[in-house]
Formats: sequence, C-alpha cells, structure tokens
Amino acid sequence: MKAEILAVGTELLMGQIVNTNAQYLSSKLPDVGVSVYYHSVVGDNPERLKESLELALKRCDVVITTGGLGPTQDDLTKETIAQVCGRKLVLHNESLEDIKAYFKKLGREMTQNNVKQAYMPENSIILKNNNGTAPGCIIEQYDKTVIMLPGPPSEMKPMFDDFVIPYFRKKCSYTIESRFLRVFGIGESALETKILDLVDGQTNPTIATYAKDGEVTIRVSAKVEQGKEADQLLYPVIEEIRKRTGHSLYSEENKTLEQVAAELLMKNNLTLSTAESCTGGLVSQTLTNIPGISKVFMGGAVTYSNEAKEEYLGVKKETLIKYGAVSRETAYEMAEGIRKRLKTDIGVSVTGIAGPDGGTPEKPVGLVYIGLSSEQGTITKELRLTGSRNRIRTITALNVFDMIRRHVLKLEIDTGSKV
Amino acid sequence: MKAEILAVGTELLMGQIVNTNAQYLSSKLPDVGVSVYYHSVVGDNPERLKESLELALKRCDVVITTGGLGPTQDDLTKETIAQVCGRKLVLHNESLEDIKAYFKKLGREMTQNNVKQAYMPENSIILKNNNGTAPGCIIEQYDKTVIMLPGPPSEMKPMFDDFVIPYFRKKCSYTIESRFLRVFGIGESALETKILDLVDGQTNPTIATYAKDGEVTIRVSAKVEQGKEADQLLYPVIEEIRKRTGHSLYSEENKTLEQVAAELLMKNNLTLSTAESCTGGLVSQTLTNIPGISKVFMGGAVTYSNEAKEEYLGVKKETLIKYGAVSRETAYEMAEGIRKRLKTDIGVSVTGIAGPDGGTPEKPVGLVYIGLSSEQGTITKELRLTGSRNRIRTITALNVFDMIRRHVLKLEIDTGSKV
Repeated sequence: MKAEILAVGTELLMGQIVNTNAQYLSSKLPDVGVSVYYHSVVGDNPERLKESLELALKRCDVVITTGGLGPTQDDLTKETIAQVCGRKLVLHNESLEDIKAYFKKLGREMTQNNVKQAYMPENSIILKNNNGTAPGCIIEQYDKTVIMLPGPPSEMKPMFDDFVIPYFRKKCSYTIESRFLRVFGIGESALETKILDLVDGQTNPTIATYAKDGEVTIRVSAKVEQGKEADQLLYPVIEEIRKRTGHSLYSEENKTLEQVAAELLMKNNLTLSTAESCTGGLVSQTLTNIPGISKVFMGGAVTYSNEAKEEYLGVKKETLIKYGAVSRETAYEMAEGIRKRLKTDIGVSVTGIAGPDGGTPEKPVGLVYIGLSSEQGTITKELRLTGSRNRIRTITALNVFDMIRRHVLKLEIDTGSKV
Repeated sequence: MKAEILAVGTELLMGQIVNTNAQYLSSKLPDVGVSVYYHSVVGDNPERLKESLELALKRCDVVITTGGLGPTQDDLTKETIAQVCGRKLVLHNESLEDIKAYFKKLGREMTQNNVKQAYMPENSIILKNNNGTAPGCIIEQYDKTVIMLPGPPSEMKPMFDDFVIPYFRKKCSYTIESRFLRVFGIGESALETKILDLVDGQTNPTIATYAKDGEVTIRVSAKVEQGKEADQLLYPVIEEIRKRTGHSLYSEENKTLEQVAAELLMKNNLTLSTAESCTGGLVSQTLTNIPGISKVFMGGAVTYSNEAKEEYLGVKKETLIKYGAVSRETAYEMAEGIRKRLKTDIGVSVTGIAGPDGGTPEKPVGLVYIGLSSEQGTITKELRLTGSRNRIRTITALNVFDMIRRHVLKLEIDTGSKV
C-alpha cells in the first residue's frame, strides 16, 4: 500500500516547529506493509487542505493526516476531510466522556469549545486519545483509507502505536520485520566497504546503513507472510554482519550506546563516577537521562578550571604544569581521582579542547583524552576529532560510553585511534 | 510570492532523517517577501520528482528544492529539473575547480563521479558551495523561479543565507523584519491573555506566540518597503509588550536563557559553579556548550548519592536525614557548598525528583528545589513540575539560568511558585 503523510498546521509552514511526526510515521509504516511515497504540509487553510487531500487520495491508497484536530477554530482537518468524504460529523459520546474525564483529572474546567473534539465523521473507527483531548479516527472510503491523528507528538505517537499499527497489521498479507544493529568505532565508509557485498547481494532481507556522529546503524529488513517468522531470513545475515563488525557491534536492539553502557553497569552492579572537563557534564547528563541510573551512578565532577581538577579530583599541580590540562596524564589522574573520591567501581574522565577557540599547533581543537579507572588499573585513550564544538563533545561522550561497555565486557580497548 | 519547499530524498520517506531544512527555510523566507504555502517530500525517483515539481510550479511562484545534488546515481534533482525546464546541463568550469580544490584541501583523491556535480543547467545562476562539493543554482523560468540547494544542512544553510536571501531581497519591493522576544516564567495562556488585545488588534506589525518547555517566544513582524526602517512600526508594540511582561522578558534578540545568563556572568566577571542532583549535569553541560564560558565557569559537582553530596559539597548528614536529599535545606547547603569549595562568586544547586519513579505522596515526581548562593546570601526556590523526566530536567535547568539572570540583574526572585 502506498501512503502519503499530510501534516496540517501553519506553524510548520512558518518554521516554528519541525515535522518530526512525518519521520516517526515513516520509520514505522513499512513494517506493516505500508510504503511512504510522499510527505506534504499545508497550513490551516480549508481550500488548500482540500486540494492536498484530494491529490493524496488520487496518488496513494492511504492518507495519514497529523494536526488540526484541536478545539479552536483554526483546527479544520476533521471538518474538511468529512466534507471531502461526504460524511457528517456526529457526536461521539464516549469521546466526550473521555474529554470530560481528562479535564477532571487535570483539575481544570472544560470549556465549551472542547466539545467540538468529540464530533467525529459518521461510520469511522474512533481512535482513543489517552494523552490528550482530541480523538483520532480512521475513515474507510471505497478502496482508500484516511487516518487522522493529532498533532502533538506525545499524543500522536501512542495513538499510532496502539491503534494504527494493529489496524494495518490485520489488513496486510505480509509484514516487514526489521532489526537495527548499531556499530560504534567503524566509520560509515569503512563499514560500507566491509558489508558492500551483503548490501548489493540481498533483496530479502534488505540492508541499509545510516550514520550519525560517529555511529552507524545497520537496518536489516525481511519481508515475510503474516504470521510467519522472519528470523530464519534475518539470522544468517545478522550473523554475517556480526562476524564482520566484531566488538564494534554494540546493540542488536537499536539501543543507544549510553543505554547499553548503563544497562551493563546496572546488571553487574558496578558503580560509576565521572570527571569531565570539555564535555562539561554531557557524559553525566546523558547517563542520568536514563531512569533507574541512580542505583549505579554516584556522581561526578565537572572540572573546568585547573583548581577544580586539583580540589575535586586530586590531580597533581605538577602534572598540570608539566603535561597540561589536556593530556593523557591528566585524564589518568582525573579518572583515578574521581573513582577514589566517590568510592566507585569505575571512574571515567574527559579532558580536551572542544573549540572553536583554545587550540594550538601542538594541541589542536578536537584533541581529547578520555580515561577509565577501575581496580584493575587505569587506561586512557587519545581522540582526534573534527567538526563543531557540539560534534566534538558528542563523539567524546560516545567514546566514554563505549569505553565503559568494553571495560565491563572485558573487550580490547584501542587507546589511540581516531574516530 | 508563494513558495513550495520540495525536499528530495528517500531517506526522508524512510524516516531516517527529519526534514529540518524545510523548517529552516520556512523560518527565513517570509523576511524577504516569500510566503511558504507548501512543504513536500519525494524520494529519489525521477517520475515522482517530475510530477511533484510540475505541481509545485503550477501552484507556486517559487520552488526551492533540497537534496539530490550529490555525485551518486541516486542524485537526480538537477537532471530532472533541467529536463522539466527544457535546459541542457553544461560543464561549469569554476564549479569543477572548486570541487577539485575542496578535495585537495581535505587531502583526498577526487573520484570521477564528482565531476557530475559541476554540470549545471544552462543559463542558471550558480550558487557556490563553500562547505561541500555540490553547487546549487537558480533557474528563472518565465515568471517562476526554481532554486536547487544541497541536502546536508551544513551546506544548505550557508548557501541559502549567503546567496538566496540577497537574491530575494533584491527582487522584493518590501521586507519583513521580525523581532523575537523571549519570556520565561509566564505560561503561554497567561501570556496570551496579557497581550491578546495586541495580537488581535494588529495587522502591521503582526504578533504571534510560540511556547516550548516553559518558555514563550513572541514574534513581532513588521512589513516595510525595501530600504525603509521597521523600527518605528516595531518599537511601540515591543515597548507595550515590555510593559506587560516586565522582568519575565529576558531577551529581545532571540537568545536562549542560558546564553543570556552566561553573557551576564561574562560581562560582570562573575565566576560560577554548579551542584546538580536530578539534572545530572544538564545545567553545566548546557552552559559549557557556549564557547568562551571557561572564563567564568569553574566547575561543578554532580552529586547523585548522599555520600557525594557530603563529600563534594559538605552537605551535613543531619540535614540529609532530617529534611531529605530533596529539600530546601539540602538545596541551600549544596549551593553554598559548591560556591565555597570552588571559590566562585556564585554557586547554584539543583535537587529534586525527575521521575518516572522515586516519588512519594509528600514528595511527588516533579518536586525540585534549586538554590543560588553568593556573598549576599543563599536563596532557594521550590518548583512543582509535571511531565516527562526530560521535561522536568529541562525546565529545572531553565529555572536555574533564570535565577542566575535575576541575581546578576538584581531582580526579584520568586522562591516558591509553580511553572
């Protein structure tokens, strides 16, 4: 089935928000047999919405709209689509009760304009909104399907996952199952070279790579009949990719590197502390975004100044003078210092030059040292990164997470390579 | 002039990347007299690209494409547009030299397929790519304009800013000048109520609000003839908004709250240290993303465990036992502790429950205390936030930046309100 995702909202055309909904839907629809052929965006204008909808219905089997279901006068999606499909809007009592209950839960008065949200196209499948007020719906119009979803991602995503995915799964004769293999430490072109014959040679499963900030995600997708297992198609390919990527393959479940590192720490009851200079708290902030991390993450120091490095980490003044704040030696003492001070199993450290200023010919922007200290000793790694301050900090943090992962899994750690 | 932004790339329809280009262009085009009416996305498919282009040329005056200008066989934008516009592709020697120079600078060999990028539609305006290999171009076709820009945002944005904006500015009889006023500490609906008569009453300038994570941005846009000053239109409205928002208005230049706080610290030579619990380094990480911050930011402690709070901040064991880690008292001692340990002018602190777990009836998820200590004493503030862990952490950090701003500017600080 061919699909178009039609977003409705002047705020998109004004550039106030990004159309992340289209991305989310696009990434999930192929798995239930729906191929996305077009994205489009129109403003809160009934004429243009009508034209865009008619075009979408002409060129696609499925049209999914996002936005324009709210209580205000601007919100015209439902009215316009009902008109195009020749359906009346009728009061859906259950939705009205839900909306009332929602306001009650928030302790707020429901204003009269909210009732509008409970008027739904007749003979449509109503999609309950568990995270907001506007219900969605599915209209089956001859051989076409129109699906209306709310605009806020926090409402749209769960509604799509809970109701639309199962709806298509039931209709589809086949299903596409995908596995996402995530690799860190091999550049995209190097990785492509490693698996090029697999990418070229396969039609089912298909293989695609996507790179971002030093990480590469490999998507392996198998098309199978409904109810059949995809594993026998996927397994040999994944096994081959495993062989070729080795320990650089860190997740087969599309987890982030910090998630993998955090889970390894939690599973093994290993406590962690962090000592950061140029990342300024990015390592600890990223880790502490993971619920439950407080069981293993004890704390950290963000030591920008030399004084803070001495005061909080016990880095020796002589080390800072002799080797400088950005050096293997300082990274070593920082990792060891934080581990001892906070009495954790593992201490990690970062010191470097994130730029855009502060570089010298000997120590250019992008030179970063990271360290990891444990009872088994302390190791350090030199990174030579390029790009913006933000990119250098991000890739540095990923290297720290990878170092933790490799340490816990007792894998080899390259101590001086570029990424 | 009506415009459509047509993005080309299967990776967008696969949901691998978000169409941030459309947002960027949409936010900037109105200022040079171009109104965006549609966004659309098609894959790397010449037939569908051709149809989409023809539709865009029918319904708009200006079509801006992004993507599909690269060296590979997938990249078909230029070829397809040249065909639709009836133009040949001819070698543009200057572009070829630029591409050669680009590879030389990187120290890489130029492969033959890169030459394709120097073939441009005849009689078009060539747009130099200073950040990559694929040049862009402008085709003026009867009364329509087609503009091709590369896909990577790092190449697209500077090319657009440097060449396309001036191109439209020259053509446009008027210009739209916008000011972005940023407000923190007043909710969106409360703010809308405050300025509703201004929003409704104005046609030039126009006023629009946009809210995100506890902040509201007010856009004031004036339409003036080319070469005329917009200030006399903008000024009275901005002055009125100033009166109504008071000290909650923190930037008239669309700066972020952390940028404003950081600039105030730098300008006044006030050093800062941070002590964070539930934000886990988000405050320090956000601040240290600002180049030059190392002049005033000395360091911080991320103290998740009670032990770390005692060890690094000197929070008294009795305080932790009597009032708990999430309390005004602990926030007080954390802020004072970090300031004294790192000998800074200002110390700030955060302790709270970011969730999703860890809440109790007395201390629910979203209860956060922040503190600020200086020579003049230490103040604390209670926040009661709702939403996801991420949202709670983000709004907490914003409150800390606002507290710093208000402290430096000697403004009143509300110590217990909700946000």
